[in-house]
Amino acid sequence: MTSGRTIIVEFSVVPVGTKGTSLSGYVASACEAIEKSGVNYELTPMGTVFEAESLDQAFEVIKSAHEAVLRAGTERVLTSIRIDDRKDKKRSMEDKIRSVKERLSKRDLHQ
Amino acid sequence: MTSGRTIIVEFSVVPVGTKGTSLSGYVASACEAIEKSGVNYELTPMGTVFEAESLDQAFEVIKSAHEAVLRAGTERVLTSIRIDDRKDKKRSMEDKIRSVKERLSKRDLHQ
Amino acid sequence: MTSGRTIIVEFSVVPVGTKGTSLSGYVASACEAIEKSGVNYELTPMGTVFEAESLDQAFEVIKSAHEAVLRAGTERVLTSIRIDDRKDKKRSMEDKIRSVKERLSKRDLHQ
Amino acid sequence: MTSGRTIIVEFSVVPVGTKGTSLSGYVASACEAIEKSGVNYELTPMGTVFEAESLDQAFEVIKSAHEAVLRAGTERVLTSIRIDDRKDKKRSMEDKIRSVKERLSKRDLHQ
Repeated sequence: MTSGRTIIVEFSVVPVGTKGTSLSGYVASACEAIEKSGVNYELTPMGTVFEAESLDQAFEVIKSAHEAVLRAGTERVLTSIRIDDRKDKKRSMEDKIRSVKERLSKRDLHQ
Repeated sequence: MTSGRTIIVEFSVVPVGTKGTSLSGYVASACEAIEKSGVNYELTPMGTVFEAESLDQAFEVIKSAHEAVLRAGTERVLTSIRIDDRKDKKRSMEDKIRSVKERLSKRDLHQ
Repeated sequence: MTSGRTIIVEFSVVPVGTKGTSLSGYVASACEAIEKSGVNYELTPMGTVFEAESLDQAFEVIKSAHEAVLRAGTERVLTSIRIDDRKDKKRSMEDKIRSVKERLSKRDLHQ
Repeated sequence: MTSGRTIIVEFSVVPVGTKGTSLSGYVASACEAIEKSGVNYELTPMGTVFEAESLDQAFEVIKSAHEAVLRAGTERVLTSIRIDDRKDKKRSMEDKIRSVKERLSKRDLHQ
């Protein structure tokens, strides 16, 4: 990322009125859309997390996944999004996790 | 709304690293941005709900509120969003609540 | 509320694998559970907001609504919750909204 | 897990009114609480995901992390939670991700 601003986004798209309780086919459709967008992303057990350089890019990625789930065969979707937008410091998804783990290991040392 | 598709959105923007525990000044800045956007919205105790005619419009409104909170004096914000996008039926924010209340009153009658 | 601590909670329970796109019957089942719990609550277009005196009470209410939706006829539910827990000040759901509206009206006066 | 029901939970606890924009110290406090609870969990760039055998256990873990962040030095916290509760099928956090990845690799084969 070239700008100082880094945006980390987590989201999930849930289709309503599907046959059966499995959602993995819909999640796969969302993933294909994210993959095409080219952003750095990772799948978690509860959604997808990715890095964006701007809010516009973040919304573009979410929109493509949201639309992909609608196209996959449902008339209604519920999309949940959480955006962490920090202007004072560049940091990646890995940086956020490393930062917490470093603090945890320091505390262990002092106990 | 003229299209068959109606999108109902709830969101909240939380500034990180503020002085003190009150957030109402930041929420007011977000509300001013929503007000300017012209969408039909309502304030809840936990966020703001509004109606949009398209995902693009929804994201435009959220972006303006998110940026307003950043301008109000913080370097980091956390924005939570939930989008209910239904293509098969037109319905407003009031329709959703009325629909639940009608069901509740019918159940009362049958008890 | 008698303690200094006031907790305001918003949540929604979404059933997965329902017939059709309407969820109002399930939401009504959740509302009945909340009603029985006796907490002060309000329905929004995107969920339910209520006041609790403790985290334990908050989770008890959510659990009853979550279980009610499962009993209403689905094998899988997705429940989203946001908790605003403030120890330094007593305030109700109405206080939070009033506080933002007062700020908005003061800004209007000064423009 | 011994029961047929498996609950997967994601949550994050955000302190309000902290000095500065870094939250990793607070997140570390939350992680220590989860660690003590003994559940299987993983850290994501936007929160923590864990497996629970019951709603009660899930809420107990979240409560311990929520209280740990309050004790770490703030008067107000905002906790976001998403619960995926499925009664028809046992599956772990890894199962959910594997299931999506298998679908993605099958689609690649057929293109």
